[in-house]
Amino acid sequence: MSFKTVVRSLRTLSYVGSYKKIRDRPYKFYCAAILGTGYIAYSQMKRNKAEMKEIIQLKNYMAEPITPLSQLEKNQDDMKTQMELLIMRIQAEFCRALEKEEDQEAKFKVDRWTRKEGGGGITCVLQDGRVFEKAGVNISVVHGKLPPAAVQQMRSRGKNLQSSELPFFAAGVSAVIHPRNPMVPTIHFNYRYFEVQDKDGVQWWFGGGTDLTPYYLNEEDAVHFHLTLKHACDEHDPSYYPKFKKWCDDYFTITHRGERRGVGGIFFDDVDYPSQKEAFNFVTSCAEAVIPSYMPLVQRHKDDAYGYHERQWQLLRRGRYVEFNLIYDRGTKFGLHTPEARYESILMSLPLNAKWEYMHEPKQNSPEEKLMKVLKEPRDWLNIERNQRATA
Amino acid sequence: MSFKTVVRSLRTLSYVGSYKKIRDRPYKFYCAAILGTGYIAYSQMKRNKAEMKEIIQLKNYMAEPITPLSQLEKNQDDMKTQMELLIMRIQAEFCRALEKEEDQEAKFKVDRWTRKEGGGGITCVLQDGRVFEKAGVNISVVHGKLPPAAVQQMRSRGKNLQSSELPFFAAGVSAVIHPRNPMVPTIHFNYRYFEVQDKDGVQWWFGGGTDLTPYYLNEEDAVHFHLTLKHACDEHDPSYYPKFKKWCDDYFTITHRGERRGVGGIFFDDVDYPSQKEAFNFVTSCAEAVIPSYMPLVQRHKDDAYGYHERQWQLLRRGRYVEFNLIYDRGTKFGLHTPEARYESILMSLPLNAKWEYMHEPKQNSPEEKLMKVLKEPRDWLNIERNQRATA
Repeated sequence: MSFKTVVRSLRTLSYVGSYKKIRDRPYKFYCAAILGTGYIAYSQMKRNKAEMKEIIQLKNYMAEPITPLSQLEKNQDDMKTQMELLIMRIQAEFCRALEKEEDQEAKFKVDRWTRKEGGGGITCVLQDGRVFEKAGVNISVVHGKLPPAAVQQMRSRGKNLQSSELPFFAAGVSAVIHPRNPMVPTIHFNYRYFEVQDKDGVQWWFGGGTDLTPYYLNEEDAVHFHLTLKHACDEHDPSYYPKFKKWCDDYFTITHRGERRGVGGIFFDDVDYPSQKEAFNFVTSCAEAVIPSYMPLVQRHKDDAYGYHERQWQLLRRGRYVEFNLIYDRGTKFGLHTPEARYESILMSLPLNAKWEYMHEPKQNSPEEKLMKVLKEPRDWLNIERNQRATA
Repeated sequence: MSFKTVVRSLRTLSYVGSYKKIRDRPYKFYCAAILGTGYIAYSQMKRNKAEMKEIIQLKNYMAEPITPLSQLEKNQDDMKTQMELLIMRIQAEFCRALEKEEDQEAKFKVDRWTRKEGGGGITCVLQDGRVFEKAGVNISVVHGKLPPAAVQQMRSRGKNLQSSELPFFAAGVSAVIHPRNPMVPTIHFNYRYFEVQDKDGVQWWFGGGTDLTPYYLNEEDAVHFHLTLKHACDEHDPSYYPKFKKWCDDYFTITHRGERRGVGGIFFDDVDYPSQKEAFNFVTSCAEAVIPSYMPLVQRHKDDAYGYHERQWQLLRRGRYVEFNLIYDRGTKFGLHTPEARYESILMSLPLNAKWEYMHEPKQNSPEEKLMKVLKEPRDWLNIERNQRATA
């Protein structure tokens, strides 16, 4: 297992290395890193990087930032600027990485939209590609007055806010990728930053997460995915991964069916510790872990063989995805109940196709049943609990 | 228009006649009626029938009633018995009528289920037929203690109830039929009876409705559908149809899209007037109007020509149907949030297949755009308002 882990870390690292090159940073640095144990060097590299300030790279973004350039330049030290630049970069890097796996002609359609009340967003969608049936990567940077109902919703999450209309700022990136091949899992991630101003001053916090929804369980993939997220968390606090992994399993539950949406990942909210800068660095690490956690799975499986049966199962599971998103997902509900919401951006998370069969039951001992077992009882992919017991 | 109305009434009537024959009632009666103006005789017939007590016809039902036969026989005058027998009959008649349009081998799968806390239901589903892609007809007869949250939900609907756990009884029939041919609309109906016991005694009320969701607008079909429902309402109170038609348009709104689910029909709740018997007779008339309102549309269009384009549009509209049911429908939400809910029966309303495309817009002046106009601005199909103004 430990040899495997090192091999996998190196593989992840070389992927990260080759991908970083695209961003015109010195490749030498990554080559040197590969010579190390992989693990330590990887963490160190990410920590160094996280402490660099985001720079404005207009030509690399999918569209012009939402906030006017002059304002971004003037307020470079403001976390609002830092976050907007981060999500702009993450969106562009992820879209490019996905396009690289596609046929030449499949490109993201880019919609830059503005919001009457303040701010706007950039929605990028690639639909009906050879590799991706529907891929949506969205950023939004909005501000204005938070309606009392929304303030109430935040209070219930532990925030101590007044219950009248409050000025707010929110910036986030979110993506859902539904591949065509049932052997490639669906991924979802979302990283966001909030500011709310009440009479005592500005309250701020980060939230987010990345989670994986396979149609067929590949244990090696699930371990790779969780390990990449764990590395990103461990750089900042070794308690984060176990805590946020559990939060993810709890959150992505289709309650009426007693099953999880997928094999989880990490999920967190209300992160306003240990400092604003360190919380931002943590979110940066998580957002940067998306590509190395997911793209190797796409590359490995996008040309796997499958047939009608596997496609039907994928469509049924996509129906479950729709159930979760429309019934339980707080972000979707909150979004759709906001007046003047851009519902096309909110609902871009829904699959191109989905299916509902009455009383569908996978056959005993089938690969479909194997997946269901993990969805009904989330697994400790990295043996965190066993290791904790062993060292206790 | 008035000649057309008579013709349509006669057509409806002859359909009702031939269908009633199945239930072994004297056909002569209906033949005589056809000789009349159609309209008046039809109303009279339904009124006579509505006052007959429901009789137990075990062999005709889809399964054994939920309440033990001995208990039903003992309490024949109880509204709980009357309602259970009504929904058993409506379910069986509708399933048979649908099967008649199908290929020989396509039959309803019947699941009779019981509920730990009291009562149960009969779920009938026909899936992947030649004519019906997915057809679900469900009855449930449940009783027990209403959790405080559910009591609260009823209070908010105008019922004056205590806010602790209360004994309740609920019986209802509900159906959603998704045909394969995009020229045949989807129909939904639901008729239900509630009893809640609080310290002041038993409170009872009826609710329900029937509504139509076409994929391509056929105005003649919409008029036929609404007219049949209007006839059922008018027998009881001429104010019902206009009131319940508007309620239906308001209820079946996909708020975030600013559009209706379909071309409406009737919808009502909290009907506890003018008397229990008369309210039951009204609900009986509505439930009996389902077949004559809908089956002629199936027969007319089930073999209409269509192609890939029409199928894709139908799938997109089915996506909207899913959005309404999972986000807004009170019955679905209430059901899924009830512990131990039989979610397969609740979600049988979802189509076999659905589709979501980012930013889909129908072409200008296309048949798809014609439908959208009516969904964005509900129409007064029977010119009720114009006629009211003319007579004012």
